[in-house]
Amino acid sequence: MKCLLVICDGMADRPVKALSGRTPLEAAKTKNLDALAKSGIMGIVDTIAPGIRPGSDTAHLAILGYDPVVYYTGRGPFEAAGVGLDVRPGEIAIRCNFATVDEAGVLVDRRAGRISEGTVELAEAINGTVIPGIGIRFKASIGHRCALVIGGEGLSPNVSESDPHSEGVKPHRVEPLDRSLEAKHTADMLNRFIRECGKVLASHPVNAKRVSEGMKPANTLLLRGAGVAPSIASFGEKYGLKAGCIATMALVRGVGRFCGLSVVGADVETDISGLVKMALDATSEYDFVLLNIKAADDATHDGDAEKKIVAIEEIDRALGGLMDFTGENYLAVLSDHTSSISRRDHTGDPVPILIAGPEVRCDDTSVFTERAAAKGGLCRIRGQDIMNILIDLMNRSEKFGA
Amino acid sequence: MKCLLVICDGMADRPVKALSGRTPLEAAKTKNLDALAKSGIMGIVDTIAPGIRPGSDTAHLAILGYDPVVYYTGRGPFEAAGVGLDVRPGEIAIRCNFATVDEAGVLVDRRAGRISEGTVELAEAINGTVIPGIGIRFKASIGHRCALVIGGEGLSPNVSESDPHSEGVKPHRVEPLDRSLEAKHTADMLNRFIRECGKVLASHPVNAKRVSEGMKPANTLLLRGAGVAPSIASFGEKYGLKAGCIATMALVRGVGRFCGLSVVGADVETDISGLVKMALDATSEYDFVLLNIKAADDATHDGDAEKKIVAIEEIDRALGGLMDFTGENYLAVLSDHTSSISRRDHTGDPVPILIAGPEVRCDDTSVFTERAAAKGGLCRIRGQDIMNILIDLMNRSEKFGA
Repeated sequence: MKCLLVICDGMADRPVKALSGRTPLEAAKTKNLDALAKSGIMGIVDTIAPGIRPGSDTAHLAILGYDPVVYYTGRGPFEAAGVGLDVRPGEIAIRCNFATVDEAGVLVDRRAGRISEGTVELAEAINGTVIPGIGIRFKASIGHRCALVIGGEGLSPNVSESDPHSEGVKPHRVEPLDRSLEAKHTADMLNRFIRECGKVLASHPVNAKRVSEGMKPANTLLLRGAGVAPSIASFGEKYGLKAGCIATMALVRGVGRFCGLSVVGADVETDISGLVKMALDATSEYDFVLLNIKAADDATHDGDAEKKIVAIEEIDRALGGLMDFTGENYLAVLSDHTSSISRRDHTGDPVPILIAGPEVRCDDTSVFTERAAAKGGLCRIRGQDIMNILIDLMNRSEKFGA
Repeated sequence: MKCLLVICDGMADRPVKALSGRTPLEAAKTKNLDALAKSGIMGIVDTIAPGIRPGSDTAHLAILGYDPVVYYTGRGPFEAAGVGLDVRPGEIAIRCNFATVDEAGVLVDRRAGRISEGTVELAEAINGTVIPGIGIRFKASIGHRCALVIGGEGLSPNVSESDPHSEGVKPHRVEPLDRSLEAKHTADMLNRFIRECGKVLASHPVNAKRVSEGMKPANTLLLRGAGVAPSIASFGEKYGLKAGCIATMALVRGVGRFCGLSVVGADVETDISGLVKMALDATSEYDFVLLNIKAADDATHDGDAEKKIVAIEEIDRALGGLMDFTGENYLAVLSDHTSSISRRDHTGDPVPILIAGPEVRCDDTSVFTERAAAKGGLCRIRGQDIMNILIDLMNRSEKFGA
């Protein structure tokens, strides 16, 4: 018996004026989701807690059964894991940008002319940097984005960022944010790292070529979002399941990887039906597969209700491939957080969930919408309840007591 | 104003294929429960938490308002209390079997030929055993089962069991499970206790008689499930109620007794309507009476849906005797956990609850089923909420604040 958890990022919404007070999910034609609603049980979920506005990272942590209040130490460790870096408990992970400074050290471009090539070579050179007292692992992500992990004795995540978030000024020095020796030591190490990287990057052939072609060189790094990697029981230990994670978003892949899920098809470019097919295929190897589909959230950040409806309908068509899966296995579909077209961002409203499979107490809901879900048989649950419910439905839960 | 809490052990279920997707509770004719549903308010309960698969002991602790995560230290203390032993905070309680070993010390029968007579005399002899440094209280339960409580300085529950759970091998020595002096001391004491008991039992007239009649002697004890007795506020102190507990299952009686409820009609053999009548009668002496009815859970462990329906209908008939009670008093009916016919064991699905009485906000539910309950006015609550709700309905709650 397998379990597939489909997280439709930001699919839930508030009523939208331009849709006559309907939500995009209510306005969209969702034949397959509605069929699943009919055969399954629905409810609403506060992924973190009522009214708490989740990030995708904290929401996914909670849905996987990890209390984000305990385990979320900042975006850094999860971004770094998403990029493909190993991040060990106690290490400090930091998000970085390749950027451009002029000869006076003034920031000219926070994204180094939106550099898209040569970052792997630059990262390789940076990985060769030696700062006595700390170990360095550095990796380039997409475009100007990259991630840094440092390990060693006496480090602290409590340091300021060097990114001034505007151009025409010098990058900030990294400063300790408390009076501990650890924070001072870490700030010193990071300032030294930035200085050394500057030297390495300035003389790098990739940058020489960029300058010769009239492009801005990636001659410095901006650091932000330092976080200490939490110590976390792996998903496999916690639930006794072999688990995989499919997500186009590095941050979500990072949460999955950090929790011990195997990242499947990491960098594959594919459409939504390709992702769903990949997830279904992965259930032959994994007991549990998490699939994140980002399209509806992207449309929300653009404030485009029609685009969101189109995205939802595309997701619905793709989910048609899963209708047979629920005969012997469990399928759960939910949104990780509400994303509001009017706010163009996440909100803290609860999200709909449906669970379909052989032994759910199917209810009389017949459409997959926010408002129908609120009348479903699951009533109102929390994100951290979901894995326990699924594990129990799979008959793999342990009895607490006699 | 009195309150009667009827816990129908394992009555809730998942949809059963052989019942065309109905649960046994949905398939059963339950005229009285349905009438109570009409007059009362319903909801679903996670006795511990959503998806968490309860034991009957942990479920009853939670329903009585005691967090099992804090107070459940293993089955031992509750079994011992159920047998009728006083168990004081900090003492170690252990479940035991009378068993048979041969002359070489090899286990021949884990249940001493299913001994049924003479165990009280054997227990009396064991109670006379003196092990310097610890106090011993020992009591026989039904058949080969018995319970041991030891008290004294420097004891730990963190010791292994001596029961090898198979025959043809020697019983295990009790070993410390951590490196503490307390665990080592406790293991030493228990090994010595087992040795001394062996001597006492070998020469006991009950065993001489068994051997002369061709039966296996109860010449050793197997120990398992050591637990330290938690310190717990009595139910009477906690809620200001004089409370009684009626249960055919020793483990449930033990939970009740441990929490300070008076065990009523402990060893009475009676049918379900006899139990209900006993509970109703007990409300003349007690403010609050908990009645556990085991029949539906037994049918579930047998995997017999028809037998479960028969049990539910028998419970329903018996509850007919309570219809007048709810005019002036409160009656709550719930299952302590779901028991699944297909899994033949407890599951973590929520259970239905109904509360009937003079001032409940009765809802529009009209049948007592898992799915109807999910639409009830109580929505979805936790086991630990129930006593607070009942106490408040009885107008005996204290105000928190001004």
